[in-house]
Amino acid sequence: MFDWLDGAAAVRDAAGLTRRLRSRPADDPVLDLASNDYLGLTRHPAVTAAAAEAALRWGGGATGSRLVTGTTEQHTALERELAEFCGYQAALVFSSGYTANLAVLTALAGPDTLIVSDAHNHASLIDGCRLARGRVARAAHCDPASVRAALAARAEPRALVVTDSVFSVDGNAAPLAGHLAAARAHGAALVIDDAHGLGVLGPGGAGAGAAAGIAGQPDVVATATLSKSLGSQGGVVLGPERVIRHLVSAARTFIFDTGLAPAAVGAALGALRLLRAEPGRAADALRVARELADRLTDAGLDASAPDGAVVSVRADDPEHAVRWAAACRGEGLAVGCFRPPSVPDGVPRLRLTARADLTAEQVAFAAGVVLKTR
Amino acid sequence: MFDWLDGAAAVRDAAGLTRRLRSRPADDPVLDLASNDYLGLTRHPAVTAAAAEAALRWGGGATGSRLVTGTTEQHTALERELAEFCGYQAALVFSSGYTANLAVLTALAGPDTLIVSDAHNHASLIDGCRLARGRVARAAHCDPASVRAALAARAEPRALVVTDSVFSVDGNAAPLAGHLAAARAHGAALVIDDAHGLGVLGPGGAGAGAAAGIAGQPDVVATATLSKSLGSQGGVVLGPERVIRHLVSAARTFIFDTGLAPAAVGAALGALRLLRAEPGRAADALRVARELADRLTDAGLDASAPDGAVVSVRADDPEHAVRWAAACRGEGLAVGCFRPPSVPDGVPRLRLTARADLTAEQVAFAAGVVLKTR
Repeated sequence: MFDWLDGAAAVRDAAGLTRRLRSRPADDPVLDLASNDYLGLTRHPAVTAAAAEAALRWGGGATGSRLVTGTTEQHTALERELAEFCGYQAALVFSSGYTANLAVLTALAGPDTLIVSDAHNHASLIDGCRLARGRVARAAHCDPASVRAALAARAEPRALVVTDSVFSVDGNAAPLAGHLAAARAHGAALVIDDAHGLGVLGPGGAGAGAAAGIAGQPDVVATATLSKSLGSQGGVVLGPERVIRHLVSAARTFIFDTGLAPAAVGAALGALRLLRAEPGRAADALRVARELADRLTDAGLDASAPDGAVVSVRADDPEHAVRWAAACRGEGLAVGCFRPPSVPDGVPRLRLTARADLTAEQVAFAAGVVLKTR
Repeated sequence: MFDWLDGAAAVRDAAGLTRRLRSRPADDPVLDLASNDYLGLTRHPAVTAAAAEAALRWGGGATGSRLVTGTTEQHTALERELAEFCGYQAALVFSSGYTANLAVLTALAGPDTLIVSDAHNHASLIDGCRLARGRVARAAHCDPASVRAALAARAEPRALVVTDSVFSVDGNAAPLAGHLAAARAHGAALVIDDAHGLGVLGPGGAGAGAAAGIAGQPDVVATATLSKSLGSQGGVVLGPERVIRHLVSAARTFIFDTGLAPAAVGAALGALRLLRAEPGRAADALRVARELADRLTDAGLDASAPDGAVVSVRADDPEHAVRWAAACRGEGLAVGCFRPPSVPDGVPRLRLTARADLTAEQVAFAAGVVLKTR
C-alpha cells in the first residue's frame, strides 16, 4: 500500500525538496537567526521560570478540552491580558496558531460565505479556507483593489477578507487599512493573522491591528501565535466578544482539542508581562531587521525590505538554498532555508530573523557570513 | 457583518447547546472524573519536574517549525522512545493530536485515494478526511463488513481505512484486526487514532495496536495524543519509517506549525518512562472503568460497557445532561457533559473517566453521586 511513497520520495529528492530533521542541543553554539524568537524571550529567565512554575503548580498538561477540564484560571488570565494588550474586547487561546486559524475560518465562514484570501497567505489560513466549505477567491498579494473586485462580484450573503499581517517569508506587511476599507464597502469582515506582527509592530508590540489603528473594531478579528515573540507555544484569537463566544460553542479545533499546557500558558504570560514592562523590545526587533537588510542590500544581495522582524534573501534554486544555509551553519550562523511549498512564489530563499537582542557586532557578523557564503 | 452571530447564539441557547468556559483553580477540591488524565500522571511529581526542568533548560517554546529550529534532542528522544514502546518503526511528534490526524490524512491520501471512515470517528479525523480532497465513504460504526463493501466498490487506485481505536464518548473499542483484514483484502492501509488507547490498552499500556497484535505492520499507521495518559500536550504519529519520512517533507500541519514546547516534550518523556517502570498502571485504569460501569449498570443506569478508561451514561436531553453534571459538581464530583456536536449519535451523555489512581472508595462515591443526582 505504501510503495508509492518511495516514488514520491525519489521525485522530491531529484527536485531538491527533501526535508530532514536536525535536532539541536540545549547549548547550540551557532548564532540563531533562524528561529521566530523575535524578541529573544524564549530563554529569558523570567519566561522559563514562569513556565516551570506553571508546570509544577498546574501539571504537565491541561487534562482535557478547554470546555471540560482544560481551562485553568491561568488560561483566563492570559486571555484577559492578551485582549487588553492588543486592544480587543476578548481573546481565546488555542494549542497552536494553526488550530486558531482553522477555528476562525470554519466557525465564521460556511457555504454561504465568500472568503477573499491573499495569494501569499499562510498554509493554516489556506487549510482553514478549504475546511470552511464555501467559495474562496484568491486576491492578488497585498492588493485592496483585488479584494474589492472579488467582493463586488460575489453572490454569497456573507464574506470575509483574510490576510497575514506580516508575511512570514519576506517580512512585508499587508495594507490592513486598505483591506478593511474594501471589506466595509462590501459588508465583509476582516480577519488578520498577526503571528509575525504581535510583539514587533504597534505601540510596544501590541501588533499590526494596533499599528493600523483597527484593533478592537467590531468587524475585525485577529489571530496570533504565542510561539514567536512570546517565546512559548499556542495560538490566540482576538476580537469582539460575540465572536469569541461563538468560537467557544462552534469551533471544532477548540471544542475537540486538549487545552494549551500550563507551562505554555505560563511562559506566554511571563513574556507578555515582560514586554509590557519593557516596551522598547518591539522597536529593537524592527531596527535590527532594517540594519540587517540594509547591509545585505548594500552589498548587492537580493534582500527583502522588512516591515517586520524577518529578512529574506533569494537563492538561485532549492539546492543552492540548501548549500548556502549549510555553509552559513559551517561559519557559525543558523539561518532558515525556505523552499517550495514554504515559499509563496516558488523562489527559494534564506530567511533571517532579526532578534531584538542582537548586538551590532552580531548583525555585522551575520551579514558577513551570508555574503561570503553566497 | 457579525450580526448573524446573535441569531446563531439564540438558536444554540434554545436548544441547550451553548457552551461556557469554567476556569478551575490549581487546587480544585472536587473529585475529577471529567479529565482524560487516565493514569493520573498529569500532576505526578516526576512528570511536573520533567516539564519544569525542560522549560528551564530548553526555553519556553521550541522557537520555530520542527524543520527549522523546533527539533531539540529531547524531541528526538521522545520520538525514539514512543516508537519503541508502542512497537512501531518510527514516530513523529506534533503540537496536538488534532494536527497529527490532519497530517496523516492529508499527506497519505489525496484526490486518488478513497478514505473509509468509521461513522463515529473523532472530529479531527473528519476534518482530515475533508482536507484530503478525495472521496470519503462513511462506514457503519465498528463494522468490518461495511468497510469491505466500501473498499470493494471503489474506483480509486489507493485507499485508507480510518478509525478511532477506542471511541472517546462510550469507551468502546474498534475491531482492529477485522478492519486490517478488510483493508488487506482490498490493498488498503489502516490508520488508527489511539488517543484513548495509548497508556490503557496493550501490554503495559503500549496501545491498541499492540493489544491487537498489529503494531509495526507495514500497512498500519497509528496516531495518539500526549495529553491524555501521558499527562502532557501534543500528538504523535507512529508507523513505518517511510511514512514518517514522507510526513516530514509533505505534511502541512507538521511543516507550517511551531514544534511542541520543551516542557510538553519533557512531561511526555517523564510520563512515558514512569509508565515503563510501572506497567501495572494501564490495567488499573481498565479495572477501575469496569468497576465503575458495573456499579452504574447494576443500579439501573444506561451506562456503556467500557473497553477503555471511559464510561458514559445516557441523559434524557441536552438540558438534563447539563443539570445532571452541575448537580454532580454540587456534590463534589466533576464529570464530563457531552452534547451535540460532541456525541456521534445526538444522544447527550455524562462521561466519566476512570483514572488508574482512583481508590475503591472514590469509585463508590462517584457512582453514588451519579445515581443520586439522576
